[in-house]
Amino acid sequence: MGERVTISEVGPRDGLQMVKSIMETADKIEWITSLAAAGLHEIEVGSFVPPKLIPQMADTAEVVRASLEIPGLTVVTLVPNLKGAQRAYESGAHVITVPVSVSESHSRANTNKGSLEQVAEVRSIVEWVRAQDRKVKLDAGCVTAFGCSIEGVVPESRVAEIAAALADAGVDGIVLADTVGYGNPAQVRSIVRSVYREVGEKLERLHLHDTMGLGIANALAGLEEGIRTFDSALGGLGGCPFAPGASGNIVTEDLVFMLESMGFDTGVDLDGLIRARELLQRALPEVTLLGNVMRAGIPRTYKRAA
Amino acid sequence: MGERVTISEVGPRDGLQMVKSIMETADKIEWITSLAAAGLHEIEVGSFVPPKLIPQMADTAEVVRASLEIPGLTVVTLVPNLKGAQRAYESGAHVITVPVSVSESHSRANTNKGSLEQVAEVRSIVEWVRAQDRKVKLDAGCVTAFGCSIEGVVPESRVAEIAAALADAGVDGIVLADTVGYGNPAQVRSIVRSVYREVGEKLERLHLHDTMGLGIANALAGLEEGIRTFDSALGGLGGCPFAPGASGNIVTEDLVFMLESMGFDTGVDLDGLIRARELLQRALPEVTLLGNVMRAGIPRTYKRAA
Repeated sequence: MGERVTISEVGPRDGLQMVKSIMETADKIEWITSLAAAGLHEIEVGSFVPPKLIPQMADTAEVVRASLEIPGLTVVTLVPNLKGAQRAYESGAHVITVPVSVSESHSRANTNKGSLEQVAEVRSIVEWVRAQDRKVKLDAGCVTAFGCSIEGVVPESRVAEIAAALADAGVDGIVLADTVGYGNPAQVRSIVRSVYREVGEKLERLHLHDTMGLGIANALAGLEEGIRTFDSALGGLGGCPFAPGASGNIVTEDLVFMLESMGFDTGVDLDGLIRARELLQRALPEVTLLGNVMRAGIPRTYKRAA
Repeated sequence: MGERVTISEVGPRDGLQMVKSIMETADKIEWITSLAAAGLHEIEVGSFVPPKLIPQMADTAEVVRASLEIPGLTVVTLVPNLKGAQRAYESGAHVITVPVSVSESHSRANTNKGSLEQVAEVRSIVEWVRAQDRKVKLDAGCVTAFGCSIEGVVPESRVAEIAAALADAGVDGIVLADTVGYGNPAQVRSIVRSVYREVGEKLERLHLHDTMGLGIANALAGLEEGIRTFDSALGGLGGCPFAPGASGNIVTEDLVFMLESMGFDTGVDLDGLIRARELLQRALPEVTLLGNVMRAGIPRTYKRAA
């Protein structure tokens, strides 16, 4: 048995928010069910954001409700603020993730608040969530941690500072997000080490985009630094409204292929992902799905770790 | 100044041999000139193989002759046998690379000889080349070193054995080639270490394909094991006739982006590669060029190492 690595599928949230058309609720649920059937036991199914801003996520409460019926699935949602966190809590989601942009300009564009104001928002979310009856895991994402398409270079010391502030605010887990996909493997190693020094094991997850073609190499660097949870999206869906030309998240299929080939146990079955991909393509025929594994086929040398 | 890494551009050989149409000699020369102008100081410009088998390479002698006029350029050619090596020597090429398939079945398909017979061919090439007046660098490639689409898994011990035999035959440098692109980063680390143990610094170069989306991650693994020369192709041209669905070589543009971003000095200018890419696309309009850097654009955070 290989060491366990968790893949947190973000296609239904990060992916669909970038797709122009709105996927039907029933299609979303069928797709999420097929992703879970492929062995993805953690899925970010949507976000609680104003439907005026991101209409693709208007049905998140309904999608969460259906997802909670899937046995063994950890249901993750993204929220920008306390109001969203309250809706997420009420929906029954198991994990709530709040993004905090390390880049001040991106923070204002994304949440209408400066980075430290958003940390304060996280603090109020922690307090509210902890006061409720049901236990919910609360994560915070250091967004644009590896560069920003508005500000450019984001200093490593600033990432460590925001991560420390989030740990201090009492979140359960911290995610480092290369939102625009500018990061490189040396930088991933360096920032992961800095943040480990600040927050220890609270640093749990990397969220990587493949804009410059380095997403999988960045995941490798993170893996070798000790990260054991990665966000990715089936077919590489996703992107960032603030990164023109950016491509999507790292491709779940390719990430699974790499990890399993290296002897890590993801619990995910590539044939199951093929079926989930077919469903996705049928529901969104105009969307171009990425991924080398699906294009080339699974090679005869492939053997799952478990 | 960052540590130097050499990128050996193989598009004019590995790339063009997989393109159905035949690029005009003048176009090849113009393209090679633009690649060199972008800072690529080592280019595999063609192969000396029977034109009946690979008509795209029929003009290699002429292409070598023109390439030798480019100041500072190391001109590399690929040859399958002694006859090819003699033609390469006569053409004036600086480096001659001979492939030896580690997989017995691929070896027979590729060169009509078993692996050890091909090692014997390399030995005769070494003897012939060393007896000539002009000094030529002679490299041998361990082809299908990370898996084979005919045989499947290729044992690591077999790669080490073939590499040791090639070192013993007296070649100057050894290349490990993931011809079909089945390798993963853990395997790259492991095989590179094994081969270093057998042949030491004679192991110089990795030749990687991006079939499964792990090419750049595999390059990272090789880099971190000490490899300082990588084959790659502009726009990810290339492939393998024996790997259906395989994509091409790792993309030069993306590799340069990664290395320079990590602080390694490749000597290559991304804007120069954009110009070379335009020439290539004009000469071969039907070919789909790959690469994330070109699709997304060079981000504002990018800074060359040197």
